[in-house]
Amino acid sequence: MSEIFVGIDVGGTNIKIGCFDSQLKLICKTSVATEADMGPEVVVDKMAQTVEKLLADAGLSWQDVCAAGIGTPGPANYRDGLIISATNMPKFKNIPIRRMLSERLGKPVVFENDANAACWGEYVVGAGKGVRDMVFFTLGTGIGGGIICDGKLVHGCGGNGAELGHIIIYPDGRKCNCGQRGCVEAYASANSTAKRATEAIEAGVQSSLKKVLEKRGEISCKDVYEHLAAGDELARQIADETAKALALLCVNVLHATEPKRIVFAGGMIAAGDILLNRIRDYFNEQIWSLKAETVQIVFATLGEDAGIIGAAALGKQLIASVKNSNNIF
Amino acid sequence: MSEIFVGIDVGGTNIKIGCFDSQLKLICKTSVATEADMGPEVVVDKMAQTVEKLLADAGLSWQDVCAAGIGTPGPANYRDGLIISATNMPKFKNIPIRRMLSERLGKPVVFENDANAACWGEYVVGAGKGVRDMVFFTLGTGIGGGIICDGKLVHGCGGNGAELGHIIIYPDGRKCNCGQRGCVEAYASANSTAKRATEAIEAGVQSSLKKVLEKRGEISCKDVYEHLAAGDELARQIADETAKALALLCVNVLHATEPKRIVFAGGMIAAGDILLNRIRDYFNEQIWSLKAETVQIVFATLGEDAGIIGAAALGKQLIASVKNSNNIF
Repeated sequence: MSEIFVGIDVGGTNIKIGCFDSQLKLICKTSVATEADMGPEVVVDKMAQTVEKLLADAGLSWQDVCAAGIGTPGPANYRDGLIISATNMPKFKNIPIRRMLSERLGKPVVFENDANAACWGEYVVGAGKGVRDMVFFTLGTGIGGGIICDGKLVHGCGGNGAELGHIIIYPDGRKCNCGQRGCVEAYASANSTAKRATEAIEAGVQSSLKKVLEKRGEISCKDVYEHLAAGDELARQIADETAKALALLCVNVLHATEPKRIVFAGGMIAAGDILLNRIRDYFNEQIWSLKAETVQIVFATLGEDAGIIGAAALGKQLIASVKNSNNIF
Repeated sequence: MSEIFVGIDVGGTNIKIGCFDSQLKLICKTSVATEADMGPEVVVDKMAQTVEKLLADAGLSWQDVCAAGIGTPGPANYRDGLIISATNMPKFKNIPIRRMLSERLGKPVVFENDANAACWGEYVVGAGKGVRDMVFFTLGTGIGGGIICDGKLVHGCGGNGAELGHIIIYPDGRKCNCGQRGCVEAYASANSTAKRATEAIEAGVQSSLKKVLEKRGEISCKDVYEHLAAGDELARQIADETAKALALLCVNVLHATEPKRIVFAGGMIAAGDILLNRIRDYFNEQIWSLKAETVQIVFATLGEDAGIIGAAALGKQLIASVKNSNNIF
């Protein structure tokens, strides 16, 4: 009999679900529309049905499922298993998601912040393998974060630690969606990178990106890196500012929890070496020379599966810890 | 028979030593000159002799000493018990201080960064009591730090985590002693606060502090807060900049490890409420409103004894963990 762990990654648009073996190798995965406006009971039921169908289609036995992990966007009360609120899921207010899913599945469930789940996935089988201290950033619409100290996720007193996108790097700088000024997220997320390019063009700066803006009505972060590769000067400046902001973030987390490895993930890392090398260069410029060589700055390796892998891995860890504590289970 | 724990706090000038009971109540304490230029063997021998005399004078039995803790300035390899180098102790290079002291005392010894030891002291019996997540700052010549996540000190991959004074808050700002630009230490340590006042006066800014500078040739941080209390405008500006820098530091550590309590210690907190209230005000101005109420910003309560209490408490924890692991000891 084999052991199966289920990982569920809830986003505003889609829910990703994967089944993993005890080595956290992917057996099968699928994705369904979140349809959060149907309310929590319908969504939880859909999750369970999707898991059941996924297992059946793969010829797997429900009995072999040991545990599931679920990652959702914050803010939430992860200790008590509650979604407190979620920007894209207005009907999910104070929802005991962990209990609901556990009862529906009849299996133990671990509930975690989505960025922490992806961080844990990279830590266990991805870019963080082999270290005990890691910091993780996702570069997407915003900037999410995860911190692992001595092999453990940092949750903070209220379960909302590692919101690293809201570290202030430019006091009195650009306004962030959170209300603070000068957050790294206001400079270096994919959205902010695109937004800064758009603002510069609207302010009259010459750039090959201007045609994109005129044609499509908007510029994406991908456009910025493509036009940088093609030699556009504004794109270079914008990308440099992004890299410098991310390098400052690396300096600051290094002085906080001293990770051995800093892992960048999210859609923006598709920009590749042109992004990574610039972050590393600015980091080496900024950092105290004594510490420059202690940290490795790398890209994530698990892609979009990090969330489901991490959630499943947390389920596996739960079972292991229960076994270790010699409880009957 | 009572249990005794010894705490040793090594500074460039003095070594503080205290004996504590199992409740970490101070039994007796003393202080001796470090005389680091005599070399590590002489200094270790002096520590041991001082402990012996301290116990004898208090009528305590050597046999009741369970363990000792020692805190020293970094950088060091705390895992292996080595002082790698120390600014004020040039003869202490790659010194296996933990083993030397343990052999000389014939007792188990815990070796820790001095700021971490003080942080642990405040956590166990001082301003951090009752929480599981805390961040600690010492405001002195520089700014030291300590982080506790879920009841454990954060050491980082090389034992040099929580060097929070070197978090960059003003990119391309003032040069810090570490070589970086814009570290919070370059703005908000006691030394930097005094230095910024001195620079302003030398640049021609009018201030009642000018007479102090002319008379003594230097301005202290204490002078700045005294002249602020007396209504001096420059002193107010300088103190405001210090408080704003410390508030930014609070915002950033809150987003990193989400402490329940942030504790300020060190000579500078003698400035009192005028400092604390300004930090709190700037913090509330800067922070994401959702998070403003989750953290308590307070002053340390143990004063200069925090280091010896924390070191002794770490010794106590060592013994407890050995007992818990059921090893023969």
